[in-house]
Amino acid sequence: MQQETREPQAPVMVLVRPQMGENIGAAARAMLNFGFDRMRIVDPRDGWPNPKAVAMASGAGKVLEGAGLFPDLGAALEDCDRVYATTARGRELVKPVLTPEEAMAEARALSAAGKRVAILFGPERAGLENDDVARANAIVTVPVNPEFYSLNLAQCVLLLSYEWRRQAGAALPHRPVPDLARQIEVDRLGDHLEERLEQAGFFFPASKAAGMKRNLRNMLARWSLTRPEVQTLHGILRQLSRRD
Amino acid sequence: MQQETREPQAPVMVLVRPQMGENIGAAARAMLNFGFDRMRIVDPRDGWPNPKAVAMASGAGKVLEGAGLFPDLGAALEDCDRVYATTARGRELVKPVLTPEEAMAEARALSAAGKRVAILFGPERAGLENDDVARANAIVTVPVNPEFYSLNLAQCVLLLSYEWRRQAGAALPHRPVPDLARQIEVDRLGDHLEERLEQAGFFFPASKAAGMKRNLRNMLARWSLTRPEVQTLHGILRQLSRRD
Repeated sequence: MQQETREPQAPVMVLVRPQMGENIGAAARAMLNFGFDRMRIVDPRDGWPNPKAVAMASGAGKVLEGAGLFPDLGAALEDCDRVYATTARGRELVKPVLTPEEAMAEARALSAAGKRVAILFGPERAGLENDDVARANAIVTVPVNPEFYSLNLAQCVLLLSYEWRRQAGAALPHRPVPDLARQIEVDRLGDHLEERLEQAGFFFPASKAAGMKRNLRNMLARWSLTRPEVQTLHGILRQLSRRD
Repeated sequence: MQQETREPQAPVMVLVRPQMGENIGAAARAMLNFGFDRMRIVDPRDGWPNPKAVAMASGAGKVLEGAGLFPDLGAALEDCDRVYATTARGRELVKPVLTPEEAMAEARALSAAGKRVAILFGPERAGLENDDVARANAIVTVPVNPEFYSLNLAQCVLLLSYEWRRQAGAALPHRPVPDLARQIEVDRLGDHLEERLEQAGFFFPASKAAGMKRNLRNMLARWSLTRPEVQTLHGILRQLSRRD
């Protein structure tokens, strides 16, 4: 029992724009196999609730009943401290690319320190978009056969859940845990930065503005900002932009 | 390539009396994700070859083409040195019950020594019978949630294959190395930041200036800045500080 109470809270599994209800249900089953029960669903293609998801989930229906529904990824991540994006494709984004083992080791240490961890899973066909990945602090890639990759959504959820549970046996490494900022705090910092740069005419030419903004968000996510750093950066932005 | 040749030969995956062709195909896909390609099939319910298995296997068809067909489990295991039976149920048989991690660690050591390892997977509905398990040297049980167990055949094959591959060191095929900025570049960025903040009256009161500057340098170091990020930050500083 003592060990039970020390088991850190499992990550939130975030399904981003999932398409088929069956796959949402299968993901719920995959989660519950390893005791995960916190799912968030972002903008599901076929609306919510979804009878096909319920039918497929079967005994894991309570995962769906407790799932949070969000209109966009930003809203789904507001209270999260650390975000991992599962993606198989190489990305031009400069972010740590971790194995499930590395990611879940880190996630367990953070969760044990009271931090809220989220893992993002993309839509079945296309996977996460660059704007989704831009919100993540790190990328998780399952080390599959480079010549054959066919993991589906539920299998990907299953492997991450298994990996978390597997490590429950291992003692947590003692590593210092920074006071990470919540996603909503980082989002607001990003808004503040954009606003100041907009006023200063930074986003030029206009045709490149969207890409520039994504790069800035990416950069903020990559740094894994702490709460004091976010405050410092707000202060710097205010001070540098003063016109008096 | 030298590393390749030292990788021990992957275990044989033995499907015992599988029922649905789709599940055999899905198992082939699960295997090939992690580079497994040696399948044996014992007395499949719907005969062999099975068009539904081929359709489901899709790009993993070569696993099915190379699969051995056997009338009974004894024949399938004749040349094997070590046999693991995957089963979720408790057994009255007195045999070691291993986690996938323990089983694959042992299997890797045996394979590296030239031994042939087999892993048994039972029929979808009922699982392995006691007579099947009696042929195994050890039992493998995935540590699932005791209140919810819903792993299907392909998922079980997937987890064992993943576990084998994970223990190989699980190097990711392509891990991008960020274009980290040199220390001198970070130092110059720090100088630039200080200069702009000095002009803007940020370091106030003067008694705290030294500590504030140290915190800023600390922050820049913690972020492990890339070269493009350093350029971006120089640009932001210039643009925000413009007075025109």
